[in-house]
Amino acid sequence: MNLDPVHVIGAGMSRFGRYPKDVTLEAMGTEAARAALRDAGATAADVEAVYVGHVFGGPVAGQRIATRIGLAGRPVSNHENYCSSGATALREAWIAVGAGLYDVVLVLGVEKMTDRIRGGVQPDPNDLDAAIGFLFAAGHGLSARRYMEDYGATREQIAAVAVKNHRHSTANPYAQYQHEVTLDDVLHARPIAEPLGLLDCSPISDGAAAVVVASPAGLRRLEAEASARIEACALVSGTVQTGLPDVNEEDVSRRAGHSAYELASVGPGDIDFVEMHDCFTIAEIVRLEGLELLPRGRGAALTSEGYTSLGGQLPVNPSGGLLSRGHPVGATGAAQVCELFWQLTGQAGGRQVENARTGLAYCKGGSVSGTDGASVTTVLMTA
Amino acid sequence: MNLDPVHVIGAGMSRFGRYPKDVTLEAMGTEAARAALRDAGATAADVEAVYVGHVFGGPVAGQRIATRIGLAGRPVSNHENYCSSGATALREAWIAVGAGLYDVVLVLGVEKMTDRIRGGVQPDPNDLDAAIGFLFAAGHGLSARRYMEDYGATREQIAAVAVKNHRHSTANPYAQYQHEVTLDDVLHARPIAEPLGLLDCSPISDGAAAVVVASPAGLRRLEAEASARIEACALVSGTVQTGLPDVNEEDVSRRAGHSAYELASVGPGDIDFVEMHDCFTIAEIVRLEGLELLPRGRGAALTSEGYTSLGGQLPVNPSGGLLSRGHPVGATGAAQVCELFWQLTGQAGGRQVENARTGLAYCKGGSVSGTDGASVTTVLMTA
Repeated sequence: MNLDPVHVIGAGMSRFGRYPKDVTLEAMGTEAARAALRDAGATAADVEAVYVGHVFGGPVAGQRIATRIGLAGRPVSNHENYCSSGATALREAWIAVGAGLYDVVLVLGVEKMTDRIRGGVQPDPNDLDAAIGFLFAAGHGLSARRYMEDYGATREQIAAVAVKNHRHSTANPYAQYQHEVTLDDVLHARPIAEPLGLLDCSPISDGAAAVVVASPAGLRRLEAEASARIEACALVSGTVQTGLPDVNEEDVSRRAGHSAYELASVGPGDIDFVEMHDCFTIAEIVRLEGLELLPRGRGAALTSEGYTSLGGQLPVNPSGGLLSRGHPVGATGAAQVCELFWQLTGQAGGRQVENARTGLAYCKGGSVSGTDGASVTTVLMTA
Repeated sequence: MNLDPVHVIGAGMSRFGRYPKDVTLEAMGTEAARAALRDAGATAADVEAVYVGHVFGGPVAGQRIATRIGLAGRPVSNHENYCSSGATALREAWIAVGAGLYDVVLVLGVEKMTDRIRGGVQPDPNDLDAAIGFLFAAGHGLSARRYMEDYGATREQIAAVAVKNHRHSTANPYAQYQHEVTLDDVLHARPIAEPLGLLDCSPISDGAAAVVVASPAGLRRLEAEASARIEACALVSGTVQTGLPDVNEEDVSRRAGHSAYELASVGPGDIDFVEMHDCFTIAEIVRLEGLELLPRGRGAALTSEGYTSLGGQLPVNPSGGLLSRGHPVGATGAAQVCELFWQLTGQAGGRQVENARTGLAYCKGGSVSGTDGASVTTVLMTA
């Protein structure tokens, strides 16, 4: 691999939430992209290419946004990998900039879900999991049950993920929810897929997130004040599980982690904080374990002990995560990288992780088993 | 730009056409991918990553196909740029292989349209063109009218594109239509957007096309018998036309051409044959002119004189093009590259272009004006 160093030099988001129809995909994308450019000290004229991640935005959604911010004419490409779409766009940008095609590019994740989605997000009808009724909430409910059974974890320990992530996002001005929830709130929320209730599930959200990615030459040209280096952006899909697989095995997360650790020449012990794909409370726990960031079977207990809270040994989701920052699916991967950038450059305000030098973001898209899905692990370091 | 040489070493297609519901996206994708791997002398174990282009396939369609052919676990990404989706997937593969990330990857374009599309394909409702009623057929109808007015071209000369492309595809076993049409057939077909009739329009199609892309090391490892080098795969989007623009100006095609010519260090005069995005008869003409492959205003006359026919000075669409090979939108860009590969390696049978050493494929996706769209120009040369 011949990639030259690649940096994130600016980030911007629209506040995630539920917006009326007249707040369009294009409006949110424009807001986030402009904020990222401003943050990088860049103008539209500096941007050589645009990489967009979305799922439900319709054909050439990225071009519709690029045109509106003065980027018409540039190479624009749209990338879809379900909940890893924004992360996949970042990955393609990382490769193109690292290969020397461009010095400054814009990466944008965007989704307007509330216009299009009724109830929860579902896998495609031809998805292998969907074919057997293994829908997202059902799968994570089974995962929680199995985890409690195998490791003696309690319902309260799993619910602690939601309490923590909601607490973190009270300091995140871009979060959909900026209020705390109590353990009692989580335990007594409307049941969704036993034992999980509504507050164990990430919401349906609208929003956009963008970063400016640059080569060393681009960084110098823009005289960027803040930057963080992309050490890895590893993509894997799931393998077919045969026999009676353990739903919490998280083989896909383990491989996504290993692939990124190898690229970045780091180990799990080098990671200072994490933005984790907590589409459900239990998912944060089993994925942290899959990535070998927590010992197998210990994640729930460690969460309730504060190990993954701000101020703990390994802060996870200082942004509030998908559960509380919100989860506009195509935007999530880009929002995670915004948070890594802000943390690594000391701009995270009331949710700042102390001594944050190496951050990891993990995104998982597609089926619960990961078979028909995409997982992306991104590692950023202080420059 | 630091890209190492990149080769196409195998190609495969499903026959384009209209298929019943039980011939799924996954089935067609699987067929094309397997054919390409077989052609390259590769097995699934050789493939390190998968790049998929589609528009209407639903979330993680590429993963659903990859899983079915033994490629579960690999990095799989889905790329959408409307009718340039397959070409965009090729472009990302070209960059990743050229940057040294992989030695052997699979590129697949696939679309099952007949299940999803009623009537013609339309731009997204938020597309700037669509907002003013400038839908695809309407736009190309205006383009034909303006072309006839400006250059004294006749309706018959424009119709000659359909006659030629249908004739070419009689020798293409993968074409949706393998029969000739007469000038009379074209002129008297059901009117669609005056002066264009049904046979001036590419059909709604199902199909898949795949190529295996390799580094020099991958090529040696697989002992590939046939190969063609990717000299350029240039992506641009349209610019905003102000004032009273000439719909036939084809600024986006001109820029896509220049970008590719520069990358490939060739000029229009070096191109031996072309796979052109003839979504409508008139589009083939104005785009050939936009790419400076034919003199402005002369394309219609030259077409009717046989200049762009097999055996002519610059054969265009030996495959039959979108008009007659068919146009499953996400597959088209990949199918064009299959044709370049077969032509450049002398495997095109009854539609073989003599002395084919440099081939160009041009794809245009999104709005007619190109403003909210993506154009990809690919240049392949004999190795």
